Amino acid sequence: MIAKFLREHDADFIILHGSSKNANFYYATKFKTSDPITYIAGIDGSDILLVPEMEKRRAERESRVKEVVSLNDLGYMERLKEIKDAKKAYLDILVSVLKEGRCRKLLLPEELPTYISFELMKHFQVEVVKNPFTQLRMIKSSSEIEKIRDTSNAVVRCVKWVVENFNFKTCEELRRAVELKLFSEGYLAENTIASSGKASSDPHEIGRGRIENHVVLDIFPRSVDHLYHSDFTRTIFLGKNPELEEMYEAVVDAQENAVGMIRDGVDARDVHQRVKDVLNGYGFKTEKGEGFIHSTGHGIGLEVHEEPRIGELSVELKKGMVVTVEPGLYYSEIGGVRVEDTVVVREKDCEVLTPFEKFLRL
Amino acid sequence: MIAKFLREHDADFIILHGSSKNANFYYATKFKTSDPITYIAGIDGSDILLVPEMEKRRAERESRVKEVVSLNDLGYMERLKEIKDAKKAYLDILVSVLKEGRCRKLLLPEELPTYISFELMKHFQVEVVKNPFTQLRMIKSSSEIEKIRDTSNAVVRCVKWVVENFNFKTCEELRRAVELKLFSEGYLAENTIASSGKASSDPHEIGRGRIENHVVLDIFPRSVDHLYHSDFTRTIFLGKNPELEEMYEAVVDAQENAVGMIRDGVDARDVHQRVKDVLNGYGFKTEKGEGFIHSTGHGIGLEVHEEPRIGELSVELKKGMVVTVEPGLYYSEIGGVRVEDTVVVREKDCEVLTPFEKFLRL
Repeated sequence: MIAKFLREHDADFIILHGSSKNANFYYATKFKTSDPITYIAGIDGSDILLVPEMEKRRAERESRVKEVVSLNDLGYMERLKEIKDAKKAYLDILVSVLKEGRCRKLLLPEELPTYISFELMKHFQVEVVKNPFTQLRMIKSSSEIEKIRDTSNAVVRCVKWVVENFNFKTCEELRRAVELKLFSEGYLAENTIASSGKASSDPHEIGRGRIENHVVLDIFPRSVDHLYHSDFTRTIFLGKNPELEEMYEAVVDAQENAVGMIRDGVDARDVHQRVKDVLNGYGFKTEKGEGFIHSTGHGIGLEVHEEPRIGELSVELKKGMVVTVEPGLYYSEIGGVRVEDTVVVREKDCEVLTPFEKFLRL
Repeated sequence: MIAKFLREHDADFIILHGSSKNANFYYATKFKTSDPITYIAGIDGSDILLVPEMEKRRAERESRVKEVVSLNDLGYMERLKEIKDAKKAYLDILVSVLKEGRCRKLLLPEELPTYISFELMKHFQVEVVKNPFTQLRMIKSSSEIEKIRDTSNAVVRCVKWVVENFNFKTCEELRRAVELKLFSEGYLAENTIASSGKASSDPHEIGRGRIENHVVLDIFPRSVDHLYHSDFTRTIFLGKNPELEEMYEAVVDAQENAVGMIRDGVDARDVHQRVKDVLNGYGFKTEKGEGFIHSTGHGIGLEVHEEPRIGELSVELKKGMVVTVEPGLYYSEIGGVRVEDTVVVREKDCEVLTPFEKFLRL
């Protein structure tokens, strides 16, 4: 796939630089590392991973890259002692590796650090491109779908447990209980939203203080093992609050309409428009930063937020994409509500990976 | 500080782009966000944070930036509808903000994504610079030191608990117990090294399978709340293994020599040399990728690994720096050992933030 991309751009190599915190880098190399390293793929299908000496054996065992070379093998230590600047010595090594491969034209992914690009453009013809791995990552393999399903199962189990054992007085207690429960099963959730009262009208407010009539619980863990995410939200009602409950009914209806539309070939923009139409039909206006103020959803996988987006732009949804569907309504004088599932696009419909009751009253 | 840096480079603005996963970005803005946003600081001391509409109120409350502007305020949605490319619309907004500020020369930190740099250099005079926040972050304020102390206390409590309750049969069990214990107290440790047998001769091998005669336990958690790290290693002996124990004695002696040297004004390279000399004095050779094969230590704070490095390059250690001191010895036919503490450089000595027994036999 990458060789084809290189041919289309009439280029010899593409270069990636990052750690496994970078989803494209991990996807390309399948190597877990916390310090940034470099990956180079060539038009002949060859690829190479440049690692510190002490990572070489592990990289050979664990990465999917054909050739692993240590910086020491390439004379890095000698360069470093000579020029006494780690970044410059590193760039020298990169240039020499590319020259050895007879690189003429090189592709630079958009997110490549500037200091690398500015040096490489002195030596090679370069073109800045959208990272082809971002594109590849959009369509999930069946093994990737199983990983997202695994994390989805964990988050649904966790919310079931929350509902059955709800004795949380504060947003902080609820967040802590959810994150600890998930972590004990091997999933890392951070910045879990457990937000109540008027503060919940800010969709990214994680929530503080006493839980009032309702709580928006939005959890987006990743597996510590395989690194794939899920994303799931329910609004849980505790006391009576007719205004919030009416908003939530509209949001659930809009979400179910959207989920019902999703299949191979549908335009994401039309899904977003349907959500807006349903909410408008209930009389919920969006203006002055209030109402339905975010997009309908986003791709999910190695990143919580990845492509495609379900929003104002036209994008064809395709079989194998995994996306969230998460309308919400937010009014500063009332509060916010949201419902969200993670779904897989199939040929004629979509499969909800996070099936769970939507109306929860405790 | 940043205004002074801009004056030294005869530049009007510097631009940062990232999320709070990026230490420099979080340090500059004190704003927690998972999606990348842009920060611009000017020579007149002004600064501005560009955020999505839905983050505006939270950014005004939580960030330390003087001016928060939403993309919608700047006409982003109209640009997006017109040109239908999110990145291009975003770049248009950045250029217009900088032109409004009458930018002539702009500083681009080394790690800025290439697509931003390549667009901005069409409109402004640019200079690629080492991120000035990397430099600022080297010297910790007393409040930062207290945060690292807090995480250090947690990791020492955890290892004390491990030693008192050691009934772990496998590396996986030990890792899981450590990470769960820390998480329950509000600290996130990932990829904790619990490595035994010959596999421990690879310093970054996290460890698998049965715990044999010894285990190298290397934990580097960060606080979920304040985000500062600590880094701590002990080699724990279970059965008899004279070769490994001799190696560990040498490593502890080398580490104590290094810790004893660290004070304001010392050259990090001399500390590293002392470690090498002590290990050589014990007859432990380093060659062919075996022996003492990594540097002596690294700065620590918002990142596990940050500047300064204690290694082959000359760097003056200064009061307020927080660094690790972590010699190790690794031989593929025997295994590996390492000892590590996190210390604060003071005027006449250093303070060990992770005081704990070094010889642990269970």
